[in-house]
Amino acid sequence: MVYLTRKEHFCASHRLYNPKFSEKENLEIYGKCAYPNGHGHNYELEVTVVGDPDKDTGMIMDLKKLADLIDADIVDKVDHKHLNVDVDFLKGVIPTAENLALVFWRILCPKITAGRLYSVKVYETPDNFAEYRG
Amino acid sequence: MVYLTRKEHFCASHRLYNPKFSEKENLEIYGKCAYPNGHGHNYELEVTVVGDPDKDTGMIMDLKKLADLIDADIVDKVDHKHLNVDVDFLKGVIPTAENLALVFWRILCPKITAGRLYSVKVYETPDNFAEYRG
Amino acid sequence: MVYLTRKEHFCASHRLYNPKFSEKENLEIYGKCAYPNGHGHNYELEVTVVGDPDKDTGMIMDLKKLADLIDADIVDKVDHKHLNVDVDFLKGVIPTAENLALVFWRILCPKITAGRLYSVKVYETPDNFAEYRG
Amino acid sequence: MVYLTRKEHFCASHRLYNPKFSEKENLEIYGKCAYPNGHGHNYELEVTVVGDPDKDTGMIMDLKKLADLIDADIVDKVDHKHLNVDVDFLKGVIPTAENLALVFWRILCPKITAGRLYSVKVYETPDNFAEYRG
Amino acid sequence: MVYLTRKEHFCASHRLYNPKFSEKENLEIYGKCAYPNGHGHNYELEVTVVGDPDKDTGMIMDLKKLADLIDADIVDKVDHKHLNVDVDFLKGVIPTAENLALVFWRILCPKITAGRLYSVKVYETPDNFAEYRG
Amino acid sequence: MVYLTRKEHFCASHRLYNPKFSEKENLEIYGKCAYPNGHGHNYELEVTVVGDPDKDTGMIMDLKKLADLIDADIVDKVDHKHLNVDVDFLKGVIPTAENLALVFWRILCPKITAGRLYSVKVYETPDNFAEYRG
Repeated sequence: MVYLTRKEHFCASHRLYNPKFSEKENLEIYGKCAYPNGHGHNYELEVTVVGDPDKDTGMIMDLKKLADLIDADIVDKVDHKHLNVDVDFLKGVIPTAENLALVFWRILCPKITAGRLYSVKVYETPDNFAEYRG
Repeated sequence: MVYLTRKEHFCASHRLYNPKFSEKENLEIYGKCAYPNGHGHNYELEVTVVGDPDKDTGMIMDLKKLADLIDADIVDKVDHKHLNVDVDFLKGVIPTAENLALVFWRILCPKITAGRLYSVKVYETPDNFAEYRG
Repeated sequence: MVYLTRKEHFCASHRLYNPKFSEKENLEIYGKCAYPNGHGHNYELEVTVVGDPDKDTGMIMDLKKLADLIDADIVDKVDHKHLNVDVDFLKGVIPTAENLALVFWRILCPKITAGRLYSVKVYETPDNFAEYRG
Repeated sequence: MVYLTRKEHFCASHRLYNPKFSEKENLEIYGKCAYPNGHGHNYELEVTVVGDPDKDTGMIMDLKKLADLIDADIVDKVDHKHLNVDVDFLKGVIPTAENLALVFWRILCPKITAGRLYSVKVYETPDNFAEYRG
Repeated sequence: MVYLTRKEHFCASHRLYNPKFSEKENLEIYGKCAYPNGHGHNYELEVTVVGDPDKDTGMIMDLKKLADLIDADIVDKVDHKHLNVDVDFLKGVIPTAENLALVFWRILCPKITAGRLYSVKVYETPDNFAEYRG
Repeated sequence: MVYLTRKEHFCASHRLYNPKFSEKENLEIYGKCAYPNGHGHNYELEVTVVGDPDKDTGMIMDLKKLADLIDADIVDKVDHKHLNVDVDFLKGVIPTAENLALVFWRILCPKITAGRLYSVKVYETPDNFAEYRG
């Protein structure tokens, strides 16, 4: 079994805020990430599939097709957007790195037909990132 | 003359939009950067001073003091903020990388008392950046 | 289960040297790393916790709190220090990347109360690093 | 058990092409990677061994020896070469990142005598990489 | 005057070889870079324009248009190609980083209509790069 | 005129301390960098030469020879050393990034015989660096 990874990039803004909590509670829980007008990141998204390379092609999955899939189903919908308000599949989701990894996994998992999805990793910054492995 | 640089980091959101133009014109000029709810970046800010190292200290300027100055006068005011609405010194400024470099220069220039300010460089992403040298 | 990582940074010097061995043996075992006056690195420390994101906050653990914990218990004690002589919890430990990962794990493990510690990874350089997973 | 990694680098050219397929099929399968005169990459090769650090040396394996082993058995044979035509151990292998990870594993695995080989990871670019764990 | 930079990327193979020299001379001059079947790199191309930001747009030049120009006139013609044999505008040019910077400058300079071209920088690797400023 | 750069790397420890000052003054001036047992960095050293590429070779200077020169005259003497005590040409020099750039320039300048030395840039960390241009 070989693990094959494609990294894509997008720029977006978000705000960590749960309407169940008061303004004060949100600031206590999320700190600067709860500021009312949001902030943003150069997100990096690493998607890893696992499988046996095909005997004839030497590939688990065409990296170009994997990139196209990630772009069509995720990047095109979140790039240059505000994650709290602009993205259908994030409605009602607090856009922490943890939750983004979970949601992106659910979108991609059924689309991976060569090998299977192994990991979705979301970098907010080079120092902050979350990974979900199903 | 030696050039000494300190790099600082901040996360912010912005929107490229000029109210003088129609919505359609803004989209033509700025593309995805004009989307109504904005997007964001992990900005990097490189500040370079130039001068002769002091004979006794071997330093043009204490890098810690340079970092503190950048943090107090810029980073603390833009980090985790929306550049179009949250920042006093950016009111009325379209927050392109070019304009950010210009505005940050004007703030920092009078504060550099050892050596003089040589360059302010603003990275929106590793692939997009602007530099102003006065 | 989601894996959440925070990366912190410190600069330190160290020397690979075991007093049980002769000078000649130390040089044979550790090469340049055994030079008598030591050398140093820009260390990177990645700490990963694993758990289920809280339903209300979307977080396994507040990344700010994780960063503060790493800083208070590790970074503040090793940054700008000589690892062989300046650090209480490294007394008698040969400061290889492997041993640093082990020692840092033992310090952090009991402090992680949301989720549990999954991995401690120590980079000496971008090309040399060690990871401990308990 | 600690995981210890050494990263090495090499520059090489390759072409993704299987003579079993027609020119047209190769272009459909591999896209630009099938262009007749090949292209190239700054490859990165991460080799991870796992084991218990030796009580006396604090090391699983001397990183210098691991680097020398990777250089002698792999890097010296692929660096500044065309992977499809210049490398004995890649004859008949389609040089995808997946296959390179598999072939490099088979070469290195019997040579690791302190600890055991855990992973071989091959980066074609920072955005495309494959890993084999045996 | 502000300096605005866009970085683009391409993967290509090349060989340093001048048919005026003997095989032996080529190996003496270019070392491993003269190996007969070539090798390759993940090239990075930084293009810097200099000018005054437009009062209304805050931009010297639309970064998207700069990227499109670099892609259409350079990247699309060199990406996944062998620079010695596949590229019209490199016929007869020894593809050192120095010469690539010079040739790319000549292509881009007349196309920059907002501001003017200031620098073309070509990275073969993160450790080897050449820049031309006209 | 083209600018050609080679980057080399070394790991070293240093302490910022001037015996002319008291302990207290050194701590006020240099902060953590004055701690008695020193600390260290993964230094990066960028050396840039400027000149016209040779008509026949396409090179200003052989990058391999430039690398060998930097290694022989600088890296081999500072790598895995304590800059304050182990390096002849740094005796009496306070090893700030500014001073390292100046000293390295003086060593390299007379050795560059193809083109001329343009810049020596010393990175202590990715966020702190100094450059000297003669």
